[in-house]
Amino acid sequence: MKLTDLITPVALIDVARMTQNINRMQAQTNRLGVAFRPHVKTSKCVEVTDAQVQAGAKGITVSTLKEAEQFFDSGIRDILYAVGIAANKLPQAAALQEKGCDLKILTDSVASAQAIANFAQARGIVFKVLIEIDTDDHRSGIKPDAASLLDVAKVLADAGMVIQGVMTHAGSSYDLNTPEALVQMAEQERFGCVHAGQRLRAAGFSCPVVSVGSTPTALAATGLDGVTEVRAGVYVFFDLVMRNVGVCQLDDIALSVLTTVIGHQEEKGWAIVDAGWMAMSRDRGTQKQVTDYGYGQVCEAAGNVIPGYVISGANQEHGIISRVGSPDLNIVTRFPVGTQLRILPNHACATGAQFPEYQAVDRHGDVKTWSRFYGW
Amino acid sequence: MKLTDLITPVALIDVARMTQNINRMQAQTNRLGVAFRPHVKTSKCVEVTDAQVQAGAKGITVSTLKEAEQFFDSGIRDILYAVGIAANKLPQAAALQEKGCDLKILTDSVASAQAIANFAQARGIVFKVLIEIDTDDHRSGIKPDAASLLDVAKVLADAGMVIQGVMTHAGSSYDLNTPEALVQMAEQERFGCVHAGQRLRAAGFSCPVVSVGSTPTALAATGLDGVTEVRAGVYVFFDLVMRNVGVCQLDDIALSVLTTVIGHQEEKGWAIVDAGWMAMSRDRGTQKQVTDYGYGQVCEAAGNVIPGYVISGANQEHGIISRVGSPDLNIVTRFPVGTQLRILPNHACATGAQFPEYQAVDRHGDVKTWSRFYGW
Repeated sequence: MKLTDLITPVALIDVARMTQNINRMQAQTNRLGVAFRPHVKTSKCVEVTDAQVQAGAKGITVSTLKEAEQFFDSGIRDILYAVGIAANKLPQAAALQEKGCDLKILTDSVASAQAIANFAQARGIVFKVLIEIDTDDHRSGIKPDAASLLDVAKVLADAGMVIQGVMTHAGSSYDLNTPEALVQMAEQERFGCVHAGQRLRAAGFSCPVVSVGSTPTALAATGLDGVTEVRAGVYVFFDLVMRNVGVCQLDDIALSVLTTVIGHQEEKGWAIVDAGWMAMSRDRGTQKQVTDYGYGQVCEAAGNVIPGYVISGANQEHGIISRVGSPDLNIVTRFPVGTQLRILPNHACATGAQFPEYQAVDRHGDVKTWSRFYGW
Repeated sequence: MKLTDLITPVALIDVARMTQNINRMQAQTNRLGVAFRPHVKTSKCVEVTDAQVQAGAKGITVSTLKEAEQFFDSGIRDILYAVGIAANKLPQAAALQEKGCDLKILTDSVASAQAIANFAQARGIVFKVLIEIDTDDHRSGIKPDAASLLDVAKVLADAGMVIQGVMTHAGSSYDLNTPEALVQMAEQERFGCVHAGQRLRAAGFSCPVVSVGSTPTALAATGLDGVTEVRAGVYVFFDLVMRNVGVCQLDDIALSVLTTVIGHQEEKGWAIVDAGWMAMSRDRGTQKQVTDYGYGQVCEAAGNVIPGYVISGANQEHGIISRVGSPDLNIVTRFPVGTQLRILPNHACATGAQFPEYQAVDRHGDVKTWSRFYGW
């Protein structure tokens, strides 16, 4: 199948770019001397994840137990579920473990650790548990110096759980946009997580794993002493948010949406396309960044960026393409009805999630369908 | 199955509220003496659509040909595909028609009409085509007085297509929030579309259908002289955007996301839940409205609104619940780990789309699974 055979909108993966992104991150973590555990929530696709594993990844990170189940079924055993587990999900986690999955779960409070311990003891099983550390005041986790770190560890150890280690995600790195700030955040993430691990060990608990990461900090880190593994997700495709953060170029972005011009509002300089927010997602992650790309950057069907043209507005199945700054009153002749265009997304994780499948395009323009899943 | 058996996050439909919403809209269009053609892009669910048809709907409106295919397979023949059709989708439309679907397609330009005509003549078929009218300067369509209206009709008629009529959608009604402005917009929508139809007839073209609608204008309209049918979609569930527009109350909202508290940041007054933007969608439709609900309004698991608590921030699988105005420093005791909560969404169409299925909850708290589809 060729690009021109596709019925729009479709989610395209540029396989050459994706491969380059995978190799770049694997080389970076190899250089830093740590294991790499990609976060597969970005793609939710077996072919993409297999490529990451073949490049050298050790295990995967997931954001839902459905991902854990799907990737366990595809042959991956070593899985970290990197969201604090709710008690209602413990039976599902136990079932996976009992099928042979080497599953690690996460907690950041005594209450949650107690729920894990109670469930496991009642079922007669042992969970491997990581403790989430908050190194950047961003979201979840225990502060590296907080007393509750040892309280949580004690609840787990008393119940015979395996304390697998500590884990942090410096999600606030997405708000940065200079190399200096990213290097500093990577060091802050490393330092806080290593310190939490040292506190556990000093108190007599085990802590074999010190896991850190986000795409920006993973790529910015210059040294990761004390860290055992790095996690990152969106790097596999990159996106406009990452371009604004400064860790990729526009032509590194491997995910795009192929769309077709279906009409115009000539006097406004609008071309209307069949990729609305249902295709692009509602993510407006570049809105407050250095460059606001609206709902996406317009490229030619072959992938070359058309500077200054973005999806400036979106309804469910309609996107409005316009020129930033001043209306293009020649938009009808520039992008006639039927023109195919590619749109680079703000946020690859959100855009990918809108599609049941990707169309993977190789260097020769040949297209293969890779399915993806969704839901919980 | 009962609510407490569900593994969060899940999309709940309150069936009693949904039924009330369906009956309200059907009664309104009955009173106005027009047919009602619901837009099923909101639910993409056979059970929901069947309830709309049983209440009196005549045919359906769809936003994708996949919806047309799915609902044709479920037994609905009369289908309007209400997005200007791209030429690459004409074979799919023709195939549906050839299977017996009474499909209507849409155009708003000579170029697109010509593509429809060329394809149909080459294949030896006739399409039923509506011409899209722009009555509120919002998105697509031909202005009611524009010369191109007759040019488009001529292209279609010369090629032997059936000119089914005119169609408009006053999407800018979503930006209003007073009954007076809504009544005025409903009249503007009616007047422009009826006028376009009269121009077609005066020029000797057929125009049996005059189709208008959006949820706000459909509910606000006081008279629809010259209109033959009304379309509306989101009314079936309603949402926080519609509450801000003023066409529903919070306790009319039939779609919510059931979620579980997984942790806290006590000193910030945050409860972390397992409904992030993957569950709620990235839609921030209330951001610029009279009340900004963040990523959603928090309710008790039973559905009662907890005033002042919203999802104030969201990552992929993490939502942050906080109190508007001042942090609730008792959040840990108010919403302990494991607490289940319901979240009302900004935009039902966007939130529903994140889920492979709904859990339909009846008056007795019994739950049935209704599947939904996605993609193109």
